Amino acid sequence: MSSKPIHAISPTREENYPEWYLQVIAAADLAENSPVRGCMVIKPWGYAIWEHMQAILDTKFKATGHENAYFPLLIPLHYLEKEAQHVEGFAKECAVVTHTRLESDGKGGLRPCGELEEPYIIRPTSETVIGVQFSKWIQSYRDLPVLINQWANVMRWEMRTRMFLRTSEFLWQEGHTAHATRDEAEAETKQMLNVYADFAENYAAIPVIQGEKTPAERFPGAVNTYTIEAMMQDKKALQSGTSHFLGQNFAQSFGIQYLDKEGKQEYAWTTSWGMTTRMIGALIMTHSDDDGLVLPPKLAPLHIVILPIYRDEQDKEKVLNYCQDLNQRLASLTFNHEKIRSKVDAREMNGGEKSWHWIKKGVPIRLEIGPRDIEKNSVFMARRDLGIKEKRTLTCDEFINQAATLLDEIQTQLFNKAKQFQQDHLHSVKTLDEFNDLFSEHGRGGFALCYCAPDDVEDIIKPMKVTARCVPLVQANDPGLCIFTGQTTTRQVVFAKAY
Amino acid sequence: MSSKPIHAISPTREENYPEWYLQVIAAADLAENSPVRGCMVIKPWGYAIWEHMQAILDTKFKATGHENAYFPLLIPLHYLEKEAQHVEGFAKECAVVTHTRLESDGKGGLRPCGELEEPYIIRPTSETVIGVQFSKWIQSYRDLPVLINQWANVMRWEMRTRMFLRTSEFLWQEGHTAHATRDEAEAETKQMLNVYADFAENYAAIPVIQGEKTPAERFPGAVNTYTIEAMMQDKKALQSGTSHFLGQNFAQSFGIQYLDKEGKQEYAWTTSWGMTTRMIGALIMTHSDDDGLVLPPKLAPLHIVILPIYRDEQDKEKVLNYCQDLNQRLASLTFNHEKIRSKVDAREMNGGEKSWHWIKKGVPIRLEIGPRDIEKNSVFMARRDLGIKEKRTLTCDEFINQAATLLDEIQTQLFNKAKQFQQDHLHSVKTLDEFNDLFSEHGRGGFALCYCAPDDVEDIIKPMKVTARCVPLVQANDPGLCIFTGQTTTRQVVFAKAY
Repeated sequence: MSSKPIHAISPTREENYPEWYLQVIAAADLAENSPVRGCMVIKPWGYAIWEHMQAILDTKFKATGHENAYFPLLIPLHYLEKEAQHVEGFAKECAVVTHTRLESDGKGGLRPCGELEEPYIIRPTSETVIGVQFSKWIQSYRDLPVLINQWANVMRWEMRTRMFLRTSEFLWQEGHTAHATRDEAEAETKQMLNVYADFAENYAAIPVIQGEKTPAERFPGAVNTYTIEAMMQDKKALQSGTSHFLGQNFAQSFGIQYLDKEGKQEYAWTTSWGMTTRMIGALIMTHSDDDGLVLPPKLAPLHIVILPIYRDEQDKEKVLNYCQDLNQRLASLTFNHEKIRSKVDAREMNGGEKSWHWIKKGVPIRLEIGPRDIEKNSVFMARRDLGIKEKRTLTCDEFINQAATLLDEIQTQLFNKAKQFQQDHLHSVKTLDEFNDLFSEHGRGGFALCYCAPDDVEDIIKPMKVTARCVPLVQANDPGLCIFTGQTTTRQVVFAKAY
Repeated sequence: MSSKPIHAISPTREENYPEWYLQVIAAADLAENSPVRGCMVIKPWGYAIWEHMQAILDTKFKATGHENAYFPLLIPLHYLEKEAQHVEGFAKECAVVTHTRLESDGKGGLRPCGELEEPYIIRPTSETVIGVQFSKWIQSYRDLPVLINQWANVMRWEMRTRMFLRTSEFLWQEGHTAHATRDEAEAETKQMLNVYADFAENYAAIPVIQGEKTPAERFPGAVNTYTIEAMMQDKKALQSGTSHFLGQNFAQSFGIQYLDKEGKQEYAWTTSWGMTTRMIGALIMTHSDDDGLVLPPKLAPLHIVILPIYRDEQDKEKVLNYCQDLNQRLASLTFNHEKIRSKVDAREMNGGEKSWHWIKKGVPIRLEIGPRDIEKNSVFMARRDLGIKEKRTLTCDEFINQAATLLDEIQTQLFNKAKQFQQDHLHSVKTLDEFNDLFSEHGRGGFALCYCAPDDVEDIIKPMKVTARCVPLVQANDPGLCIFTGQTTTRQVVFAKAY
């Protein structure tokens, strides 16, 4: 009889994946539900991850010529009406502001008063309100391109919410650009998709498939939507960032026009692209295990935690001093062009409890330091990406010399592991039967890569709760038979169940 | 007959100060009004200033032990009702969300539907919604202190708005902390006031008076509000940052309780403190002149702009190369622990027009480089804090060696000039007559420092549109006679007209 290993998170992934996800969030103290319907509170550890995401993305946006700006939270109702598809997509779930004051209701409570002539909605996305401003900023070809990004909160009145993955309010960045030509706007759309893919793979250590959305999955009002799709550990897809080529749709709706070099009035070509706090959900579901959060070092608020271990007051001072010295030496090191983030956890707390605290928070490296380590001038190191009990002793100097390399190794390992998982569960599906098997109740699931001729096969796949994730940018060279129609086609589509 | 000097901004400060302010904003392209009532659009140059403010403040908050987090935008109506004074202060001007969907109105338009059982208001400030979470986070003295900051947008339905100074939506940070003892909470309140004063004086180059608000000017729900008050060039006061000691008011309203070491249930002591995009308004009105914006180097998005000047294509390449080389050499320098921010403006544009472009944007140093400067290996330098025509030639090496020192000198000069202005217009007022003269229609205005015994003298000063700005933390040692009551008192109060 083998004894079942004990894990910090209950249930485990295998037992109940959705509940495991929530328990990882709770155990790492990343976020919690708030009494405001569908809105979460992002707690310091979760928000610190977001800050690192922001810093990296912001640097990349600026390096590609974008500037940050800020536009109003509220959108006049009639703006939304200007773009027909856009309103279809967003009117169904939005927060509507109708009043501007509160007054006593005579029963000790308050009621709204000061009704607005025209209601406002809280931005679900800002194409409309930014479109209005762009139409003022842009007069001549000399004013183009306009390359803007906004860091903001947005709101969509979601019915079923899940922390980080789908919340009524969420944080994001939204890029909005206007260009003189179609080619330039399309190049921008793809450039920003690349920025997202680079961020996902090389920072969040999440392998992604880049592709085009099928018409049914496009952003409301877009000519074309590009996406990066990641595979979670339950083999479901998570759309992790999107970049939209809006053609001249919004330019026409909002009058974004310019005089070209020949003095002719033309509509601009616009794009928009966004990445959200959902990326934290992707991070959790890609790397974490049954002991809690696992963080890729490049996004970890803390790289190395030093845990002093002592039995009595006499040892205590010696151990704490040794730890502080070590911490100071680490502070002078860099990883990924930034200072290594390390700290000593000197709280009075049971050693095991303290160690589990940081395991559950996903800190990449833990160092346990007791009197015997000091005697040997060594550290007892545990890596979060390895088994809980796989610890090893290094001399202090060895560790300091290797710290950055170790972090880099962890970063790479996490990516490779996730990549392997993705490859293991990406199936080339040749027939509809195979497809049906894959996505049946007891099917293996994963991503199905299929030849697919029609633009939309919604009617066929919807009952299985499967969606077309994307038409990958990298396509096979050879044609094949469409699994839905039998037609010969070169177009391959990735299908999956998705968040 | 002397010819009137020509200025870039019309009207000048003397001609029409409020309109001058708006024209400086327009000329520097900092922000613009939006079609959304009372909401502005912060344009890239304005937002870049805010980003520098954020980076500096955020570092200071973290250095004093605070962590960032994020709380919901929406506040359930009944939260507001829990703190009696708080609701008084904020219910009169708030955006109320009453519906969650839009539907066709049958006339081609949309109308709200999906009415909420309980309306939400868009946060005017977050004491209530954060208080609810704190009551969950805090159980024992071991959980204290809780030191949180939030970067967010907030909304107050202002009737009369002015860009940056008073807008319906604005950006800010709000600190919220909870402590075990009154002393600790009071120390926190004052610590954060000091952080604001340090930021205002040593970064924004704005001299401020630190003080306590009188009861009438307190934050709704606070036991005590501390403020930093700055003097604008029209001698009016601008409240530039506030720090509130909330006592146990919010802890009682929201049940923020903890078990102390003796196992006794106690209410926590809380604080809150905020600084907003209003600080950009303060920056404009403190330093700018009749030629436009003047930026203190520590907050300038660009420290040095290099303007190539050439007549023909032959010169062009040589001049541009020289400028790019210079720019690269500058890129390796640091000012105030950050890389010097410089760029070459190579746009095809009339030289005078280009120069004025950057004058109006307030860039601290402009370098004009033409063929003759290259021959002499020199730069022709203009400082934004000096007269427009006060330019001087330095050798390239001289400039590079001095660049950081020059920026530092400009920073100091701006502060000293503003400090002198503040001192020149801070009047020790001994009698009510003097007070009335000072604030009469043709009075000199400025700040009146008066002995004042009563807590509130609202009835007397309100008709003059004067308010008590603060009771300065630094008080005179000797008592004097209250100008309102004739009583002997040691309490001095600063009065002024204010934004």
